[in-house]
Amino acid sequence: MKILRTIDEVRRWRGSLAQGTTVAFVPTMGFFHQGHLALMEKGRKLCDRLVVSIFVNPIQFGPTEDLDRYPRDEERDCELAEQVGVDMLFLPRADAMYGENFQTSISVDRLSTGFCGACRPGHFSGVATVVAKLFNIISPTTAVFGSKDFQQLAVVRQMVRDLDFPVAVIGHDIVREDDGLAMSSRNVYLDEQARKDALFLYQSICRARQMAAGTKEMPCALITRDIAERAARHPRVELEYAAIVHAGTLLPQETVDSRSVLLLACRVGPVRLIDNGFLREAHDQTSM
Amino acid sequence: MKILRTIDEVRRWRGSLAQGTTVAFVPTMGFFHQGHLALMEKGRKLCDRLVVSIFVNPIQFGPTEDLDRYPRDEERDCELAEQVGVDMLFLPRADAMYGENFQTSISVDRLSTGFCGACRPGHFSGVATVVAKLFNIISPTTAVFGSKDFQQLAVVRQMVRDLDFPVAVIGHDIVREDDGLAMSSRNVYLDEQARKDALFLYQSICRARQMAAGTKEMPCALITRDIAERAARHPRVELEYAAIVHAGTLLPQETVDSRSVLLLACRVGPVRLIDNGFLREAHDQTSM
Repeated sequence: MKILRTIDEVRRWRGSLAQGTTVAFVPTMGFFHQGHLALMEKGRKLCDRLVVSIFVNPIQFGPTEDLDRYPRDEERDCELAEQVGVDMLFLPRADAMYGENFQTSISVDRLSTGFCGACRPGHFSGVATVVAKLFNIISPTTAVFGSKDFQQLAVVRQMVRDLDFPVAVIGHDIVREDDGLAMSSRNVYLDEQARKDALFLYQSICRARQMAAGTKEMPCALITRDIAERAARHPRVELEYAAIVHAGTLLPQETVDSRSVLLLACRVGPVRLIDNGFLREAHDQTSM
Repeated sequence: MKILRTIDEVRRWRGSLAQGTTVAFVPTMGFFHQGHLALMEKGRKLCDRLVVSIFVNPIQFGPTEDLDRYPRDEERDCELAEQVGVDMLFLPRADAMYGENFQTSISVDRLSTGFCGACRPGHFSGVATVVAKLFNIISPTTAVFGSKDFQQLAVVRQMVRDLDFPVAVIGHDIVREDDGLAMSSRNVYLDEQARKDALFLYQSICRARQMAAGTKEMPCALITRDIAERAARHPRVELEYAAIVHAGTLLPQETVDSRSVLLLACRVGPVRLIDNGFLREAHDQTSM
């Protein structure tokens, strides 16, 4: 496995591949868990070469967010990447990605406004901008993203479509712990109590699926009200949003259908967690 | 010469070129004049293949601007492109470039705020966005832009640098009529009187160069005040801005130096015209 740290090295590596070589790319912020490794395995299966980047992207963090304490473990990440069959691991430095005079941003307007975009102003613009940079540096043919950050995946898909990036975007289903908690690098922030309380998210998704299964025309408001009431009664869970939206447009829905996704964000103690799930049937994220 | 109208056709054409083929790209809004042809000749000399696009980009026009009456002559443009040795001419349809759900934009913040950006809100975002799309569709190795739109060239260079597009941006000196008027597709709007009055721009640049040549530490304010006073006395010229800035940053300067560029915009009758020029020595735009 090649470990490269400069943009020039990456371009040279990419330029040395034979014409027609397919390249899968998994952009990450490191501190790998099974979710990351599943994305890499997917990428390795899809393409001739597999590239992973680790970059804790400063411009997608707000001033009060956890940029400085975001968990990092470069050595372990390198070992895991090697084991999973990564061909090239890109570890750029922040000052090489954002020079002094940096001033360009990409916005995906409608998809970025609600949900996490409302709570985290500038977040999705920071994500879209760094993804565009990484695409231009690496020139992948395919990029694999997790679907825990459901809105992020929608924003990236829309940017790729609108700006005509020649990259196929593949979404991958959420990887969960045995008890259902969605895997996240930020789970390391959870203490013992918070780790139990965090199950509120997955339990809400399962309960919503049960409610939706029982009725043909299930009003979305009944489900989200149920979640809000359960959160209000919970002493340590603060609900940020619970919304049922169309998977493609992220527009709110009246009644549950096969495109309905429940989006959830809440604070469990001091830790902000998100989760989501389709409410009817199993869905392959790749066909979204 | 290939004439292609869909993104898929362009990708197939580009994909059929041998690995390592260099591709020069000249994005235009058509209605070619000697300025466009000079950019194409430059591109042809620099690279193995030459691609030109003609697209009157709706998102860079304001609601009160001249999108609908912007001059067009596709047949003549095709003949001229063929004569100059264009390999592929891309003529996209507006609805293929901007679908119903289009919502992504690129902003280059500081460089877009003053001058034409102040008079034409959204203009440079529209330019940056379409240039990014065209780069992603065509994958050129080099792109050639005229320097009459000096601020546009600065914005494109900054976007390419900030988003790591693997494209070399080349600026080309302004091509002028015999009497000094900068060539522009919009010159066709000028009637006989306005055509004479339009020389105000080039005469202002020549006069500024003379003023700068006479003094070692020439205050920029003396030159711009002189231009403003001459415009005020002119019955048919309305000055929009006259500014002396650093060529790279577009920041205002106190005194003239080798990086000083005079930027000019004015209305001559109903027609808006822009022009610019370095105030000391000849400058090759490519080294900017």
